Amino acid sequence: MDLLPSILFFLAVTLVTLQVALAGDADILSDFIPPSNTTVPPDGSFFTYTGLRADTMPPDFKVFKASMAEFPALNGQSVSFAVLMYPPGTVNPPHTHPRASELLFLLVGSLEVGFVTTTNDLFNQTLQEGDIFVFPKGLVHFQYNREEKAPAIAVSAFGSASAGTVSIPIAVFNTSIYDPVLAASFKTDVVTIKRLKYGLSH
Amino acid sequence: MDLLPSILFFLAVTLVTLQVALAGDADILSDFIPPSNTTVPPDGSFFTYTGLRADTMPPDFKVFKASMAEFPALNGQSVSFAVLMYPPGTVNPPHTHPRASELLFLLVGSLEVGFVTTTNDLFNQTLQEGDIFVFPKGLVHFQYNREEKAPAIAVSAFGSASAGTVSIPIAVFNTSIYDPVLAASFKTDVVTIKRLKYGLSH
Amino acid sequence: MDLLPSILFFLAVTLVTLQVALAGDADILSDFIPPSNTTVPPDGSFFTYTGLRADTMPPDFKVFKASMAEFPALNGQSVSFAVLMYPPGTVNPPHTHPRASELLFLLVGSLEVGFVTTTNDLFNQTLQEGDIFVFPKGLVHFQYNREEKAPAIAVSAFGSASAGTVSIPIAVFNTSIYDPVLAASFKTDVVTIKRLKYGLSH
Amino acid sequence: MDLLPSILFFLAVTLVTLQVALAGDADILSDFIPPSNTTVPPDGSFFTYTGLRADTMPPDFKVFKASMAEFPALNGQSVSFAVLMYPPGTVNPPHTHPRASELLFLLVGSLEVGFVTTTNDLFNQTLQEGDIFVFPKGLVHFQYNREEKAPAIAVSAFGSASAGTVSIPIAVFNTSIYDPVLAASFKTDVVTIKRLKYGLSH
Amino acid sequence: MDLLPSILFFLAVTLVTLQVALAGDADILSDFIPPSNTTVPPDGSFFTYTGLRADTMPPDFKVFKASMAEFPALNGQSVSFAVLMYPPGTVNPPHTHPRASELLFLLVGSLEVGFVTTTNDLFNQTLQEGDIFVFPKGLVHFQYNREEKAPAIAVSAFGSASAGTVSIPIAVFNTSIYDPVLAASFKTDVVTIKRLKYGLSH
Amino acid sequence: MDLLPSILFFLAVTLVTLQVALAGDADILSDFIPPSNTTVPPDGSFFTYTGLRADTMPPDFKVFKASMAEFPALNGQSVSFAVLMYPPGTVNPPHTHPRASELLFLLVGSLEVGFVTTTNDLFNQTLQEGDIFVFPKGLVHFQYNREEKAPAIAVSAFGSASAGTVSIPIAVFNTSIYDPVLAASFKTDVVTIKRLKYGLSH
Repeated sequence: MDLLPSILFFLAVTLVTLQVALAGDADILSDFIPPSNTTVPPDGSFFTYTGLRADTMPPDFKVFKASMAEFPALNGQSVSFAVLMYPPGTVNPPHTHPRASELLFLLVGSLEVGFVTTTNDLFNQTLQEGDIFVFPKGLVHFQYNREEKAPAIAVSAFGSASAGTVSIPIAVFNTSIYDPVLAASFKTDVVTIKRLKYGLSH
Repeated sequence: MDLLPSILFFLAVTLVTLQVALAGDADILSDFIPPSNTTVPPDGSFFTYTGLRADTMPPDFKVFKASMAEFPALNGQSVSFAVLMYPPGTVNPPHTHPRASELLFLLVGSLEVGFVTTTNDLFNQTLQEGDIFVFPKGLVHFQYNREEKAPAIAVSAFGSASAGTVSIPIAVFNTSIYDPVLAASFKTDVVTIKRLKYGLSH
Repeated sequence: MDLLPSILFFLAVTLVTLQVALAGDADILSDFIPPSNTTVPPDGSFFTYTGLRADTMPPDFKVFKASMAEFPALNGQSVSFAVLMYPPGTVNPPHTHPRASELLFLLVGSLEVGFVTTTNDLFNQTLQEGDIFVFPKGLVHFQYNREEKAPAIAVSAFGSASAGTVSIPIAVFNTSIYDPVLAASFKTDVVTIKRLKYGLSH
Repeated sequence: MDLLPSILFFLAVTLVTLQVALAGDADILSDFIPPSNTTVPPDGSFFTYTGLRADTMPPDFKVFKASMAEFPALNGQSVSFAVLMYPPGTVNPPHTHPRASELLFLLVGSLEVGFVTTTNDLFNQTLQEGDIFVFPKGLVHFQYNREEKAPAIAVSAFGSASAGTVSIPIAVFNTSIYDPVLAASFKTDVVTIKRLKYGLSH
Repeated sequence: MDLLPSILFFLAVTLVTLQVALAGDADILSDFIPPSNTTVPPDGSFFTYTGLRADTMPPDFKVFKASMAEFPALNGQSVSFAVLMYPPGTVNPPHTHPRASELLFLLVGSLEVGFVTTTNDLFNQTLQEGDIFVFPKGLVHFQYNREEKAPAIAVSAFGSASAGTVSIPIAVFNTSIYDPVLAASFKTDVVTIKRLKYGLSH
Repeated sequence: MDLLPSILFFLAVTLVTLQVALAGDADILSDFIPPSNTTVPPDGSFFTYTGLRADTMPPDFKVFKASMAEFPALNGQSVSFAVLMYPPGTVNPPHTHPRASELLFLLVGSLEVGFVTTTNDLFNQTLQEGDIFVFPKGLVHFQYNREEKAPAIAVSAFGSASAGTVSIPIAVFNTSIYDPVLAASFKTDVVTIKRLKYGLSH
């Protein structure tokens, strides 16, 4: 009888890891991939995500995602959304998406955007309401609402259900990479690195 | 000397057909694919599409696309946008996208949406402002603004730079498919087919 | 209580086969994907499908499929077959395959074929015995055996183990899409829509 | 005459940008890829291949291909055909297809088929008329019409427009690979290798 | 005890939904795929393979693999390694990799290499220390250390986590393919085939 | 006038090579993609790269690449190499590869390696000679030869012919991204940003 809890635990662990590993991609072999943790067949609500209904301008820059993690019906459909809200004067820090290009549509306000190629060319643009801008796959990019009083709102589409985000400041300076590695990499001293790390972790 | 115009004509034809055939895909081997008909290196404006800035509600349902055809920088980036405008009581007729799933974000109004699977199950949903709905790749789907006075606006993302659209009414009833084929297919008579064809072509 | 060892064994087998199978789709990471519901290793019969042996000409047009659903060894191999049988004067109604192109080989008889592009161009052809015709991925297409007495037989290959089929008449007129949506889409009245629906459901 | 430098410059620019853009693949961004060496738009005949119409049983085993090389409309459609004709007692020697699985449909006769996995397991089967057999991608396989009087005919589909064929006897023993390499590889002497080479080249 | 039926039901549902979802591939939707048979989260050692540390020159040619089977962290990362050790005068017999190209880097010694295309062209090269050579996907290739006294060592990279290997001598002559099939294929007699088979199995 | 025949010949050659090359990317439709700027058919040297033969330990960390740019035969083969040389105490600064995973094989010395996931987990490892480590696609990673006197040498394989590299210090601090964007992103002041920029550009 003692085996029962073990079996259940084993099952739970298995299913959790499978969730990650079942990671399909664009070319699935069915119309969609139904939820794996229920016996109820999906209805229209499975294909609907309502988590962005009530978004109001936050005090700082904020991203609201509708990717596979929040919206499981996207599994295998190779597309996802994020809503980006920029209070006046805020920045979406330099970051990359390892698994997709980003196509940004500026709904409200104006926005400075830019990305850097693998040959270290910077492409900048000032967007106005209704403009669309593409950030190629895997490249470092950022957005900046330079306006002092007007907020900006954008919706971004990604060519993957799970584009992923690597925030450069956090990945580099807030994950305990050894100080001398960072000092040598950024051609500065360990004191500056420690100050940057302190600032980003508080 | 007479060869010169021929060469130029040959070149023009070649380049036009190559344009089509160069049709890349998600996994390009460079950061982006620069324009092929200019010697000027691209700047930030190449990655910007401004063609949707001034859209106002049209009298009938209308789609405004930002795909690879309108916005060449999308080549190889596997993502594109369309803005959909629904005056009160209008319909986006049943259609499919042969090369991508569609992820619709309802910006304004409310909307009836639905798609049919390959097992002929219909999935319906009523969306309200801020809702997101996914139409799986290649399936027949439609949208309907049931409101009598309020317009609706949505922005849709596609997991391809060139999703393509097959409008069912037009592809089937407005392209001179032989009447008896259609009559037999829709289990009706040729007179009904002719009337449907007439209605859709006027 | 005797069930416990069985469960554990079942789990072990399941996990082992999943290990292999978790690398599905066209670019699998193994030679083939073995059946997941058995502990017996596959032999030559796993790679053989005999379900098409005894096909005789049916009274109406009929498709006999050998896709992943009928023939599990196709999982991960990106190819499948269908045999199409057309009694005299019958039609394979307009349809699309969301996940593959179709390559039709006419074994017996003659056949009218056609497809419509995303720019609404119709490409028609009359095939004779031994001819091959390609229907590009995701586009609406049909076949028609115009002969009054001679049947036609074709075998079609698909570049996916699970191409899927969307029958336009059934998906549009036999799945309870709301009548006003269809009337507006096909620019006709609700009475005509109701008649079409009735015809297709009886 | 002033046009000449412009033409050369135009060509140079074009080729440089094409270098970058040559990264397409099966997932094309258009319905089909039109022929690149003509200005005439394609019609239905472009999508038709008639080269297999008049095939009669040859004296030896023979393959008749309908791949991208013979049938250009297959470019980008990920599927192709071959017709295989086996006079009584003939063999299709061991070979591999580097770019696709093969799905064989036996139209006439009976056939011994087999393939070898990467773990050196041989899967054999005797097919009868109407049977289908799948040879997984890249594996060594063969067919043998063991019947003394009855011919066999099959049609094979491939999940690529250009599957390619590597004939083992020819690739190994009829391409001037250095004799000692072959002797060591097949654990035999150079005399036997020379005899095999002689037999296969005459 | 009431849990048992629930567990079985849960398992059944899980397996059914997994059947559908088993359509992943190299383009995973997560950073990596964690081990599925443990509850301990991975640490740096999961991403490390130490199995090649102590390799010394063996008496015969030998391959030491670091593919997905030996190094599970490669699952979904589309790359793998093998170390190849050639004592003086030894050969890596003709073989193919069904799922990837091979890029060989010669670390020590000199090496004769070659591959045969699908049009039966042989491309040969003599490599010296520090040279790199590419064997295209799915083609027959071999290596030969012609030196009488000096060993050679190479490291090869593959564009798949599980490239697979088909050894031509073993797949063809050491897997019980019927003798007459081989005799007819290699245009020789059954006695020669039997001798080749005997040599390769002892 | 003598230029005319040259132009025509140049065009003819170009179009022929383009025909072949229009099927680029990992899943090419030919064995390999021949060079597009020559009429001479390739021989074994086309598949050989000798540019890494004479590498000696440089004074600072240095990467020697053998990717598609240096070695055109890799086009379409989905794999490439780099040799990494670390004098004592040197660092390969944090960077990402937008188009491939990296599989590092430590040939000489010992090495500290690490990468950061999209959930900001740092995975560290100390490698010794003969160890292999995988950096998943698109994630920030670095290497550090902590030894005071011993150099380290590694060879890395990538699952793409053109993985690309984004050096974080250079992309972020040496490409004229507007100072206030960086100050806000790294939660520091403009003076610190200016000092980092100065250090990295001198």
